[in-house]
Amino acid sequence: MFAFVPLCHLHTQSRPSSHFHIQKDSQSGYFVGSPTRFYQARLPDRKNQKHGYCLKTRMAVQASEAETRKSYIGYDKQGFLWCEELKVMDILESVGTTPFFLYSKAQLVSNFESYLDATKGMDAIIGYAIKANNNLSLLRILSSQGSGAVLVSGGELMLAEKAGFDLHKTVLNGNGKTMSEISLAVTKGCLINVDSEFDLEHIIQASKQVGKKARILIRINPDIDPQVHPYISTGLANSKFGIRNTHLKWFLDRIKQEQDNLVLVGVHCHLGSTIRQVKIFKDAATIMLDFVSVIRKAGFHDLHYLNIGGGLGIDYERQGDAIPTPGELVASIREKVKEAQLTLIIEPGRSIIGNTGMLVSRVIGVKSNGNKEFIVIDGSMAEVIRPSLYDAFHWIGMITPNSEELSKFDVVGPICESADFLGKDRKLPRPEEGNGMAIMDTGAYCYAMASNYNMRPKPAEILVDGKQWKYIRRRETFEDMMHLCDQ
Amino acid sequence: MFAFVPLCHLHTQSRPSSHFHIQKDSQSGYFVGSPTRFYQARLPDRKNQKHGYCLKTRMAVQASEAETRKSYIGYDKQGFLWCEELKVMDILESVGTTPFFLYSKAQLVSNFESYLDATKGMDAIIGYAIKANNNLSLLRILSSQGSGAVLVSGGELMLAEKAGFDLHKTVLNGNGKTMSEISLAVTKGCLINVDSEFDLEHIIQASKQVGKKARILIRINPDIDPQVHPYISTGLANSKFGIRNTHLKWFLDRIKQEQDNLVLVGVHCHLGSTIRQVKIFKDAATIMLDFVSVIRKAGFHDLHYLNIGGGLGIDYERQGDAIPTPGELVASIREKVKEAQLTLIIEPGRSIIGNTGMLVSRVIGVKSNGNKEFIVIDGSMAEVIRPSLYDAFHWIGMITPNSEELSKFDVVGPICESADFLGKDRKLPRPEEGNGMAIMDTGAYCYAMASNYNMRPKPAEILVDGKQWKYIRRRETFEDMMHLCDQ
Repeated sequence: MFAFVPLCHLHTQSRPSSHFHIQKDSQSGYFVGSPTRFYQARLPDRKNQKHGYCLKTRMAVQASEAETRKSYIGYDKQGFLWCEELKVMDILESVGTTPFFLYSKAQLVSNFESYLDATKGMDAIIGYAIKANNNLSLLRILSSQGSGAVLVSGGELMLAEKAGFDLHKTVLNGNGKTMSEISLAVTKGCLINVDSEFDLEHIIQASKQVGKKARILIRINPDIDPQVHPYISTGLANSKFGIRNTHLKWFLDRIKQEQDNLVLVGVHCHLGSTIRQVKIFKDAATIMLDFVSVIRKAGFHDLHYLNIGGGLGIDYERQGDAIPTPGELVASIREKVKEAQLTLIIEPGRSIIGNTGMLVSRVIGVKSNGNKEFIVIDGSMAEVIRPSLYDAFHWIGMITPNSEELSKFDVVGPICESADFLGKDRKLPRPEEGNGMAIMDTGAYCYAMASNYNMRPKPAEILVDGKQWKYIRRRETFEDMMHLCDQ
Repeated sequence: MFAFVPLCHLHTQSRPSSHFHIQKDSQSGYFVGSPTRFYQARLPDRKNQKHGYCLKTRMAVQASEAETRKSYIGYDKQGFLWCEELKVMDILESVGTTPFFLYSKAQLVSNFESYLDATKGMDAIIGYAIKANNNLSLLRILSSQGSGAVLVSGGELMLAEKAGFDLHKTVLNGNGKTMSEISLAVTKGCLINVDSEFDLEHIIQASKQVGKKARILIRINPDIDPQVHPYISTGLANSKFGIRNTHLKWFLDRIKQEQDNLVLVGVHCHLGSTIRQVKIFKDAATIMLDFVSVIRKAGFHDLHYLNIGGGLGIDYERQGDAIPTPGELVASIREKVKEAQLTLIIEPGRSIIGNTGMLVSRVIGVKSNGNKEFIVIDGSMAEVIRPSLYDAFHWIGMITPNSEELSKFDVVGPICESADFLGKDRKLPRPEEGNGMAIMDTGAYCYAMASNYNMRPKPAEILVDGKQWKYIRRRETFEDMMHLCDQ
């Protein structure tokens, strides 16, 4: 029922409909778009740029992946940005106040279905990582599709329950769970990842308090370098997460002593975020399966979960990088997991929610300081902190047709500090004041990390479903920002 | 009426009272504290570390500054941390839920008084930068002391009015002010810093709409390197802030054309944050005074404000670095400003509020990954993002007496990502679970930048006044976090 629209214009149509599919360029093997739409994809503005300038226009999606990668957000031939069957410009005009986050329901469902397809024919829990985006309406869509959930706090556990997730298909993660969080998880029957010696002791205490066995997995640090930013790499020996694999025996002995309170049902690892190589998951799975053997030989016959974590990257750069699909990821470990008679748990966050959302902003003005030109928009680091926090890249585009002539700009927000930028050295048309701009792929780790810095109200969140849109979180007001104060 | 207690133990007493003063070590010229209290000050854990290991224990405050730098937060001989006349431990036990921010009213008033003293005998507006910390109760203390305010959004303007600031002593700053923010500022009679060509046009439009002259200052980019982190440096030619000084004539001509709508009352510059050298301010003032001459010669006889911005650093590292005092800062430009018959505007944020606050947390547990040891506390990057965002240093200490034996730890929070650290490679005693720890100097840019990442409620804020404490912002609840959602 939804349109199949890549983030380029479609050569066969002037606007998306539910009947069209991406066309392949017979020469290049890539899906092609107009150069004006993909200028940014050819700019070497990343530190770890792999491609440099690429004069041949090429799409983010390779031909071989067309069947698995569907896009419900894209440009038409005229240069209008669409979200499903609505022009983003039309939504902006109706909404009025910018910035706001805009999400595509079809994209969310499609991304989840990629994981469903990937795990077809095997026992698996797809545990959506709520920390990536905790909007209640989006969570309800995922729970209704059969998703499990990965939780990192008591607040997320309460939210998961409210959103209708089957709590037996949820996992409580974290290196610093509090006693009350653990007790709640034991009470509700969540799976719990054991992160350390003290964490195990706390789980034992909670289990005794609640009077119920805790279903635990051991989070083992496999010490594999996922080759991403140090802040989003978590599976290295220097990480704060997981147990030392050399200390496994101590854990097994301790768990055996507490068999009345604990049942060891699995092992867990998590390597990091924005991972782009299947091999990293495959290597981790191999190591983890060795641990499974060791643990089973030690007499733990209830062990039946292999939780391989999350961390699959998405193509933020839109350079045509080959990011593995969920299908490729799971295929690389499927046989081994089945042979070992294990249920796979996978914890995707970004790869389910990241490309479903954009931050829609308006241009306040364009200025030059002589050396540089700046597009000042009303979106900021308060809504999207990833560029300043992780040096992360988000593709930025206009939402309406613009001049073909491009200049280089920093796209910055109105917050009073230099860290407030959304993109640097981007080739863009010179916009008019009031023009709409979209910071793409801001579904994950944007609203979830948003602040009220500079007394900025948190923006509205809006969901598109076909030809309809609705608010799924209203914009904050001044009064909302004050309501915790002693007035 | 308040105790005068440095962040060290006092040799002359076992607990603070209002009768004691810091004692000076006759050998070193520094105020001395017990090594166990100041272990961190001797660790070379900063990238730009200037001191390396310093085996001689020395205080953060040099003898010559004793008269101007008062501290109301400090340790007693036993190793208890005090905030004014209360043990932090006692407050923690009464409050129960951690983490929370704790502020000292006496410290705040004292810091503001340093600026009052510094500007005695000259015309000056001390404009507290609300973006550093916007707690309403703290703002009310400052407004009652006669402080002006520097604003960076419409929300902050509304807040300043609520807090009782004289709005004629406020300045609206920002590179991306919206039309509605400017209109509000013109209506209320705030001073407005012009940041760019488009900003000036917007101010003219707003003035016409409101039917009232806008009182403007031109923000000129002096292109001086303040030698701080690039994110907090704003006075360079590559910065998004301010007008090109080569473009000044265009601005003056345009303002002349609009004399019915605009009155040019001053010039403004702002160099950046955490600045540690008076010379940087002095050089900037010299440059700005040249601009004042040029502008006056061009016939602008209403020009009577020199706004030198803010940015004075504080001694986060507690290494005994000589950070200029407000007195030293103002003394370096006083004569020139008076000669030019100007009113000085100064925009301190951090140096008024930074050292008034601490984040009080509890230890959840201690773990090792073989290579490293971690103290996991219940405070996190959601409350204090400065370490991960700016590589910023906050001194961390226990709130109760502890073993003299020290080990090296990373102090991390419970958030599920590697960016969640408060301090790295800190020498600390090995704490027990539940022990209180304080992240010091978190009055500025901490709560103001806090998020709900991982569904963490924003913490309570508590104010100490002598022997009393009270909530000045209550802790968020799960329901608070959900109230914008479509339920």
